[in-house]
Amino acid sequence: MMRLSDFERYQRENPFMDYNHIEIVFVESERSQVRMAITPSGRNLNGAVHGGLLYTMVDCVAGVTARADGRNYVTQSAHINFLQNVANGILFATGEIIRRGNRVAVVHVKVENEEAILLADASVELYCLDT
Amino acid sequence: MMRLSDFERYQRENPFMDYNHIEIVFVESERSQVRMAITPSGRNLNGAVHGGLLYTMVDCVAGVTARADGRNYVTQSAHINFLQNVANGILFATGEIIRRGNRVAVVHVKVENEEAILLADASVELYCLDT
Amino acid sequence: MMRLSDFERYQRENPFMDYNHIEIVFVESERSQVRMAITPSGRNLNGAVHGGLLYTMVDCVAGVTARADGRNYVTQSAHINFLQNVANGILFATGEIIRRGNRVAVVHVKVENEEAILLADASVELYCLDT
Amino acid sequence: MMRLSDFERYQRENPFMDYNHIEIVFVESERSQVRMAITPSGRNLNGAVHGGLLYTMVDCVAGVTARADGRNYVTQSAHINFLQNVANGILFATGEIIRRGNRVAVVHVKVENEEAILLADASVELYCLDT
Repeated sequence: MMRLSDFERYQRENPFMDYNHIEIVFVESERSQVRMAITPSGRNLNGAVHGGLLYTMVDCVAGVTARADGRNYVTQSAHINFLQNVANGILFATGEIIRRGNRVAVVHVKVENEEAILLADASVELYCLDT
Repeated sequence: MMRLSDFERYQRENPFMDYNHIEIVFVESERSQVRMAITPSGRNLNGAVHGGLLYTMVDCVAGVTARADGRNYVTQSAHINFLQNVANGILFATGEIIRRGNRVAVVHVKVENEEAILLADASVELYCLDT
Repeated sequence: MMRLSDFERYQRENPFMDYNHIEIVFVESERSQVRMAITPSGRNLNGAVHGGLLYTMVDCVAGVTARADGRNYVTQSAHINFLQNVANGILFATGEIIRRGNRVAVVHVKVENEEAILLADASVELYCLDT
Repeated sequence: MMRLSDFERYQRENPFMDYNHIEIVFVESERSQVRMAITPSGRNLNGAVHGGLLYTMVDCVAGVTARADGRNYVTQSAHINFLQNVANGILFATGEIIRRGNRVAVVHVKVENEEAILLADASVELYCLDT
């Protein structure tokens, strides 16, 4: 499993994750979580969190969840349902392995706020670059 | 169709679009385009454009394309295939209406760079908030 | 909740469900299940269950799950991951409501065999026809 | 490219495709088509074509389109938008390669009727079994 120093390095070496202040909460072998506080720059036309930012959380936690096996991955495809939205607070994206194949990992992701309101539900397929 | 002053207002009122320097190129009744120059803060662990940023371009142009009918929409769901990636240059995301229903618009989006390399291919469903 | 006679009528009035011998196992307010025995006509080129038939189970159970509120729905879009496959046995598709909006229901579906091997994982959006 | 005798063999060896009377129209290196006449057994509760059958056409033509390179594939995931529906007539599903990677092919599929009404729009990812 990753140690705190690994988390910090991971985030520092992932510029867009850092630009959006997305932090790793925990990494387990089949399940990981990231968090982010909503700021004014993350909002959309309607004043709620932008879908692009919600998906960015999904993509980040899917990558962390897949890489918990120590291998390198790229996102191959993703599907996301936007279910509800909020303007303020802390968001958590939790990834869970649905299947770890030889070359492809499928990760299910939920984005929720502090009150466990489900904002987005997604599935992400990642392709392993290591043979 | 939108005039230049509308574009500027749209972008100013969409904080996350502005935070990522995504600009509207054109808006037609059934087809729109946005552009963005890749900067260091937009990259992922592998040094290429982050999938969250590619999706953010997709979400922005899908919203612009749907709203060309003068109505307000929210993104309901999206599916994206990541096909290839680059580290530098200008990216263009082009949205095209596949179907305009009474309540739901389906937009097909392609993200390409200046050399017309296809980076991502997506479909987005948007739900109309105006009755 | 539906009674056995309702299940039989539902299946009889849904010709493609009947043509594929897909039967309702149970219907609860937020969760439903269908089952089907694999027959030779349901196989693909490789001798395993055809993806079209796996999706047909997904579509059927998503419809049943959404309609448990007594309203009529059509499938608007779906995303499916095919995870593993088998050639023989009984398959179960279980649908669960992720969100029931005013007009759109999102249903998560898992297809498993008798040994709980997960064959497919899907999410389906259904649009309500009743105002 | 495939010859007529190949088409007949392909269909005969694909039992679920045959069970649903789906026939190959043409196979080119990057684009293929299948067709099917709507019959009573293919309908849903509302009397229109069942979504499972529309997806079955999508899956079949995606497989044919990917296999035009002479390699064997399985469907890995798919996303489908159902746009409109009909009760009678002949349907055509046309697949087009969006990207042919080393291991993954992405195929875009449209399902239309004789009057070119677009019923469904899909993207399918197929994984190559041959190394």
